[in-house]
Amino acid sequence: MTPYEELSARFREAARIKSIQAVLGWDQETFLPDKAAAWRGEQLSWLAGAHHRLVTAPETAAGIDACEAAGFAADTVESTNVRGWRRDYDLAAKLPSAFVEELSRTTSEATHVWAEARRRSDFAHYRPMLEKLVSLTRQKADLLGWEACRYDALLDEYEPGARTTDISALFAELAPQIAALVGPATEISARTPADLLAGHYPIAAQQAFNREVAEAFGFDFFAGRIDTTTHPFCTSLGPEDTRLTTRYDEGDFLSSLYGVLHEAGHGLYEQGLNKSEWSLPAGDACSLGIHESQSRLWENHIGGSEAFWNHWLPRAAVHFPGLAAFTPQQVAAAARRVSPSFIRVDADEVTYDLHIILRFEIENLLINGGLEVKDLPEAWNARFRELTGLTVPDDARGCLQDIHWSFAGFGYFCTYTLGNLNASQLMRAARRDDPGLDSSLASGQYAPLLNWLRSRVHAHGRRWSAPELMRNATGEPTRADYHLEYLRAKFLA
Amino acid sequence: MTPYEELSARFREAARIKSIQAVLGWDQETFLPDKAAAWRGEQLSWLAGAHHRLVTAPETAAGIDACEAAGFAADTVESTNVRGWRRDYDLAAKLPSAFVEELSRTTSEATHVWAEARRRSDFAHYRPMLEKLVSLTRQKADLLGWEACRYDALLDEYEPGARTTDISALFAELAPQIAALVGPATEISARTPADLLAGHYPIAAQQAFNREVAEAFGFDFFAGRIDTTTHPFCTSLGPEDTRLTTRYDEGDFLSSLYGVLHEAGHGLYEQGLNKSEWSLPAGDACSLGIHESQSRLWENHIGGSEAFWNHWLPRAAVHFPGLAAFTPQQVAAAARRVSPSFIRVDADEVTYDLHIILRFEIENLLINGGLEVKDLPEAWNARFRELTGLTVPDDARGCLQDIHWSFAGFGYFCTYTLGNLNASQLMRAARRDDPGLDSSLASGQYAPLLNWLRSRVHAHGRRWSAPELMRNATGEPTRADYHLEYLRAKFLA
Repeated sequence: MTPYEELSARFREAARIKSIQAVLGWDQETFLPDKAAAWRGEQLSWLAGAHHRLVTAPETAAGIDACEAAGFAADTVESTNVRGWRRDYDLAAKLPSAFVEELSRTTSEATHVWAEARRRSDFAHYRPMLEKLVSLTRQKADLLGWEACRYDALLDEYEPGARTTDISALFAELAPQIAALVGPATEISARTPADLLAGHYPIAAQQAFNREVAEAFGFDFFAGRIDTTTHPFCTSLGPEDTRLTTRYDEGDFLSSLYGVLHEAGHGLYEQGLNKSEWSLPAGDACSLGIHESQSRLWENHIGGSEAFWNHWLPRAAVHFPGLAAFTPQQVAAAARRVSPSFIRVDADEVTYDLHIILRFEIENLLINGGLEVKDLPEAWNARFRELTGLTVPDDARGCLQDIHWSFAGFGYFCTYTLGNLNASQLMRAARRDDPGLDSSLASGQYAPLLNWLRSRVHAHGRRWSAPELMRNATGEPTRADYHLEYLRAKFLA
Repeated sequence: MTPYEELSARFREAARIKSIQAVLGWDQETFLPDKAAAWRGEQLSWLAGAHHRLVTAPETAAGIDACEAAGFAADTVESTNVRGWRRDYDLAAKLPSAFVEELSRTTSEATHVWAEARRRSDFAHYRPMLEKLVSLTRQKADLLGWEACRYDALLDEYEPGARTTDISALFAELAPQIAALVGPATEISARTPADLLAGHYPIAAQQAFNREVAEAFGFDFFAGRIDTTTHPFCTSLGPEDTRLTTRYDEGDFLSSLYGVLHEAGHGLYEQGLNKSEWSLPAGDACSLGIHESQSRLWENHIGGSEAFWNHWLPRAAVHFPGLAAFTPQQVAAAARRVSPSFIRVDADEVTYDLHIILRFEIENLLINGGLEVKDLPEAWNARFRELTGLTVPDDARGCLQDIHWSFAGFGYFCTYTLGNLNASQLMRAARRDDPGLDSSLASGQYAPLLNWLRSRVHAHGRRWSAPELMRNATGEPTRADYHLEYLRAKFLA
C-alpha cells in the first residue's frame, strides 16, 4: 500500500466510527427512552475516544507528513483529502482524549436536560449544565488556540477561515437594512390575515404532502427518511442514509412543510456528495455556511415562491381539501407573512437574521467575557426587545429555544445568515447560467436546478474553501447586497 | 486496581460495544433505508471486530487466569462473572477476528435480502445467501468444536450445556402427545367462529391498549419503547433501554396484543436484570430457554387466560367499542383458538411446538448433513404436511417466514419449546409459593407474580445454568408433563 492508501484506510475507519456516532445521535433525538440518556452518553463517549485515538495516532501524523512530501496535483481528490486531513489532524491533536470524552459525555447529558428545561420553561434547571458547557467551550477554544479573540477558534470549526471581526462587520452592515425592511414588509403582509389558512391539517396528510414535495425536489427516500423531533435537523448515518426530521402542528401545515423543505435542502447536499469519498474531505460538506445555503435555497427561494404554489396548490388540496378555496397567490402570501415573533425556527424570512445577530452577539459575550450564564435570560430578553420590539414572555420562547449550545455548538449560529447570503447569490448565478431555469421551476421541474447545484457545489466537497467555492460558482465571494435585493423584491412587491 | 477490577473494566467496555451493536441492529430492523444496508454492514462489522479484539486480547486471558487463581466464594457476583468470562473467552477465542467480521457482514446483508425475498415469496432470491450462511455456520461449529454432532456446538451458544440427543429425545416424547391434543382442541375451538371478533381495529387504538397492558404487567416505558417491524422482537440497547417491536393487522387486534405481551415478557426479564452488572454474566440472561419462559408466561399463562379477559375486556372496549358486545369468555375462547396454520408467530399455542420441532429437524439436517439448501422448500413443505396435515402455499408462508437464519441463529429455535416447558413449570411453582396468586391476577395485580419472577429468575443472571435455575426456582429440572397438563386443562376444558 502507498502512504496515501494507508492513510486513506485509516480515515475511512474514522469515518465509519463517526457514522456510528451519527446513528446513536439520531436515535438520541428521535426515540431514546428517558432513563437511557446516561448509558447513551457512555456509548458516545467511548466512540468519541476511539475516533480521537485513531485520528491523533502518531501513525496518522506520519502518514500525513509522507503524503505531503509525496505531493499531489492541485485540485484532485488526493490533494483535497491530504489538505483536509492535515487540518482535521491539527484540530484534533490539540484536544486531549480525556477532554474530548468529557465534552461528549456532557453534551449528551445536556441534550436531555435542555429538552426538559425547555418543556418546563425552567432556565434554572438548565443553568448549571450551560455553565459547564460554556466553561468547557472556553477551554476548547484555548486548546485550539486563537489570536485576535477566543471566539475565532470556535468560528473556524464551522466556517474554516472565518473571523469574528469580519462577521461582526458584515452583520453591522446587514442589520440596519434588514431592520428598515421589517416595518414596510410587516405592513404589506398585514393585508393577509394571520388566520387565513387556519384549519385542521392531520399529521398523516402533512407527512404525505411533505414527502411528495421533497421527492419532487430530488430527495432519494431509498437512501433517507423523515422522522419527528422537537427541533428539526438533517444527519447522515452513511453515504446512502440521510435522515431528516421535522415537527408537526395540526393547525398549521406550512410549519412542517417548510421544516422538511429546509432539511431536504441539507439532505440534497448530503446526497450529492462524492459517495466513494464519503466523509473524507473530498466527500464532505465545504462549510456550514455553504450547507445552510442549500437548505435556505430550497426552503425560501423555491418553496417560498409564488411559482411553487402555482404548481403545488392543486396537489396540496388533494391532501388538505380546505385549501381548494384559496388562490396560489394567497397561499404564497400566507407563507411569506412577516411578523416579528419569538422562535427562530418559526421566524419569518425578513426578521430571521435579527435572531441570528442576537445569538452571535450573546455567544461573543459568553465566550470572550462580558456576560455570565446567570445573566443570560435578562441579556437575551433586553437585546431581543431592542432588535424586534417584542417582550419575551418566558425562557422557552427566549434563550432556551435552541438545541445548539447543548451540543456545544458555539460559533454555529452565524453560519445561518451566511447561508442566506450564499443562497441568494447562488440562485442569481444559476439563473444567469440557465435562462430557462424559471420556466423549469414554474412547471415543477427541479432537476435543472439540482444538477446545477450538484456540479457547482455538491460535487466538490471540501476541495475549496467557502469563499473559493462561491467565487467559482458565482464569480465573486459572499456579498450581502444580493440577499437584500432578493428580500426587497419578495417582500416589498 | 485488583485483577478483578481490571478485568471487569475490560468487559464493561466490551458490554458498551455490544450495546452499540444493539442500537445499530435495532435501527436496521426498524428504520434503515434500503440503500443503507451495505454501509450498516460495514459499521456492524467494525464493531464486531473491536469487540472481538478486546475480548480475545492476551490481557483478557491473563486476567481470567489471575482471577481464577485468586478464587472467589461460590454464588457471588464475582465468581459468576469470572466463570462467565471464562466461557465467553473460550468461545470467542476459537473464532478468528476475520471470521467474526465476515459473519457479521453476511448476516447484516442477509437480513435485507431475506426481507425482500419474503416480501416476494422468492426463495431463489434468498438461496445463495442461505447457502453462504449454512456454510459459515458449519465452519463456526467446527471452529468451536464438538463431539457427538456438529449441531451441539450451535445449541451450546443459546442453551449452555444442551445436547442434540437430549432435545431430540424430549421432542420425541412431546410430539405425539401434542399431536394427540390437536384434534380434540381444534374441535372444541371450532365452536368459536373464526371471525367472531372480525372488525376494524385502528392501529393507534391497538398501540394504546397494548401499551396500557404492558405497563400494567410492569414494563417501564421510561426505560423502553414499542416500535413496528416485520418480525416482533425485544432488544436491550443499555441497562435502561429495552425496546419491543410488534406488527399490526387492522382486522385483528389480538395479533399485535399477544405480540406485545410476548415481547414484554422478554422485556420484563431484561428490566429485572442486575443493572449495575448489566451485560456482564451476573447481569445477563441465563439462557434463551429461560428468556423464552418469561415471554411465553406473560403471553399465554397470563394474557391468554380467562382471568385476563375478565379484568381487561372493559378497558379493551374503551379502545375498541365493538368489543362491548362480547363476554370475557368469548374473547378468551377467540384468543385460544386452535387451528393449524402456516406462520409460526401466528400459530395457536397447541400446534406451536410442532412448528419448532420441524425447524429443529431441518436445522439438524442442514448442519449435520442430509439436506442441501436447494432442497429446503421441498423438505420443509413435506414435513410440514406430515406434522399438521396442511399444504404450504408459498415459501413466504413456509421456509422464508422466520428471520433467524438470516442472523445465523441456527440452534436457536428449540429454545422456544424449552421456554414453553419452563413457563408452565414456573407458573406451577409460583402458585405453590403464593396461594393468593390467582386472586391477585384476577384483579389485575401483576406485581406479586413479577416480584416472584424477579427474585427466582431475573435477579440471578447467569449465576446458575438453566437446569440449576429451574431446580432452585421450582424444585426440579425442566420437565415436559407440567406443560402438557397445562395445555390439556386450557384447551380440552
